[in-house]
Amino acid sequence: MATINKPKILVVGAGAVGGFYGGKLAQAGADVSVICRSDYQVVAEQGFEIQSCWGDFRFNPTRVLNCVDEYDDYPDYLIVALKALPELDLPDLISGVVGPKTSVVLLQNGINVESLTAERFPNSEIISGLAFICVNRLGPGKIHHMDYGRLALGRYPYGKSTAAEDIAELFKQSGVPCSISEDIITERWKKLVWNVPFNCISVLGGGLDTRAILGTPDSVEFVRKVMVEVCAVAVATGHPLDLEVIDRNINDTIAMKPYRTSMLLDSEAGRPMEIEAIVGNVVRIAEGYGIDTPRINCLYSLLSLHCR
Amino acid sequence: MATINKPKILVVGAGAVGGFYGGKLAQAGADVSVICRSDYQVVAEQGFEIQSCWGDFRFNPTRVLNCVDEYDDYPDYLIVALKALPELDLPDLISGVVGPKTSVVLLQNGINVESLTAERFPNSEIISGLAFICVNRLGPGKIHHMDYGRLALGRYPYGKSTAAEDIAELFKQSGVPCSISEDIITERWKKLVWNVPFNCISVLGGGLDTRAILGTPDSVEFVRKVMVEVCAVAVATGHPLDLEVIDRNINDTIAMKPYRTSMLLDSEAGRPMEIEAIVGNVVRIAEGYGIDTPRINCLYSLLSLHCR
Repeated sequence: MATINKPKILVVGAGAVGGFYGGKLAQAGADVSVICRSDYQVVAEQGFEIQSCWGDFRFNPTRVLNCVDEYDDYPDYLIVALKALPELDLPDLISGVVGPKTSVVLLQNGINVESLTAERFPNSEIISGLAFICVNRLGPGKIHHMDYGRLALGRYPYGKSTAAEDIAELFKQSGVPCSISEDIITERWKKLVWNVPFNCISVLGGGLDTRAILGTPDSVEFVRKVMVEVCAVAVATGHPLDLEVIDRNINDTIAMKPYRTSMLLDSEAGRPMEIEAIVGNVVRIAEGYGIDTPRINCLYSLLSLHCR
Repeated sequence: MATINKPKILVVGAGAVGGFYGGKLAQAGADVSVICRSDYQVVAEQGFEIQSCWGDFRFNPTRVLNCVDEYDDYPDYLIVALKALPELDLPDLISGVVGPKTSVVLLQNGINVESLTAERFPNSEIISGLAFICVNRLGPGKIHHMDYGRLALGRYPYGKSTAAEDIAELFKQSGVPCSISEDIITERWKKLVWNVPFNCISVLGGGLDTRAILGTPDSVEFVRKVMVEVCAVAVATGHPLDLEVIDRNINDTIAMKPYRTSMLLDSEAGRPMEIEAIVGNVVRIAEGYGIDTPRINCLYSLLSLHCR
């Protein structure tokens, strides 16, 4: 750590992703507190028990709080690991703990999830982050990290950032592969190339894992065409992707164990899905740039009807 | 009846549609037998009990048979009221009862449902028919006709037909509104303008009736765009539709009681859906003419995955 000896970190949304990465930062010596609503009682008493394919560990946060305002301090890093849902007014939620030197790290899915926070805190460093991880909450305070775990971080909207480099270093000290990008939005588009088709089709196809989605040549072609539309929007916004990303995504997904997407798990559990962050924002961005994305629009319309 | 005094009619597929229209023809004096597989026992003993918004009636077929080959005669009209499913080899099923003077009446949903039958029986009159009716099977031999009931008939692939005129006359004698078209395929496309969006979205949207499908301005716009694609394919095949059909379909559907499509009822009951006749054939016809139908392709891909 170049600039801060024992950084103070507050994790907002200590579910599976927040609890896991918060725990890794604590392993690296950071002072990590968590905001934990539904599981507050258990986590406050027992901390987190984390089964990880990298080695099981326990995570006892410095402080476990029920709501953000109880923190009563400004952290060096505020890590947001909440689902990106339109009903969440994130800037309002965190306004009391974003101090003059606080960097806000948004570990969230989708595209354009940073803009409201960046507008509300124009003088704060916003670090946009992507977690490539299979991790589930087994129960209150119980987390199961099954596979992967890499992070990609970068200054929002682009560029270099000492704060991003420092926290990436801390992640790496704890064993989390963590890359820094000076163009993190391009990284978000790359992840969307996978997320849009597989999340949407897993739900709309009637509850399918990745193997079922790629089960026929016709369905592979369908996935590919959706991916092409995502790439077209990325190009239009000034974030061109190597089209080779499409074949790689498809081949990697065929090779991996059948996987059930987060949207499918949310749908089956009756929880809100990240439809707007993952699909709706792509549709709106495409409209703004005059790009025709009929398949993505079709998926978005069906999902919007699905969750009414 | 100009040409036949008491026509012999055999109804293949005596479910709700076949039982209802067979019963109406019997009311008009025709000699109507039925092939009835799952409900054979009850229908053979008791006939059909039909609750109809036009007046309840009973229908006691001349003969009730378990399979086509038992008919042992050639009817004047063979009325096919089976679901249009690819696993059904219809020409093979009916080959034993299509005589030199038999007209085959296909009362089925979708597009291009006639071609295999027309190829197999090149010397037979094929009459293509559309039933605009809300009718359900309540149980063995029990049919509930709730609303509508109009038929549109016409010679396949086009043109005039005395046989079509004769059976239309018989339907009208029994009180069934029945129009004759010299371009019945255009009538099929008109019906598809409604059937493609509402059937597909009712299932893919998670079990929606027509009111829910048209519940927001965005979803109305989505339905409209799917309808525009259907019209584009119809135009390409030489069956131009007045685009006003789109607004009329949407407005009429908004005005009518919430309706659950046949595909949704099939899906919920775990029965095969008419995906190929209603959507798959549209996709294949569009491909053949080089017409881009991304939304219909998207719906077709999702439904194909849905029923795997």
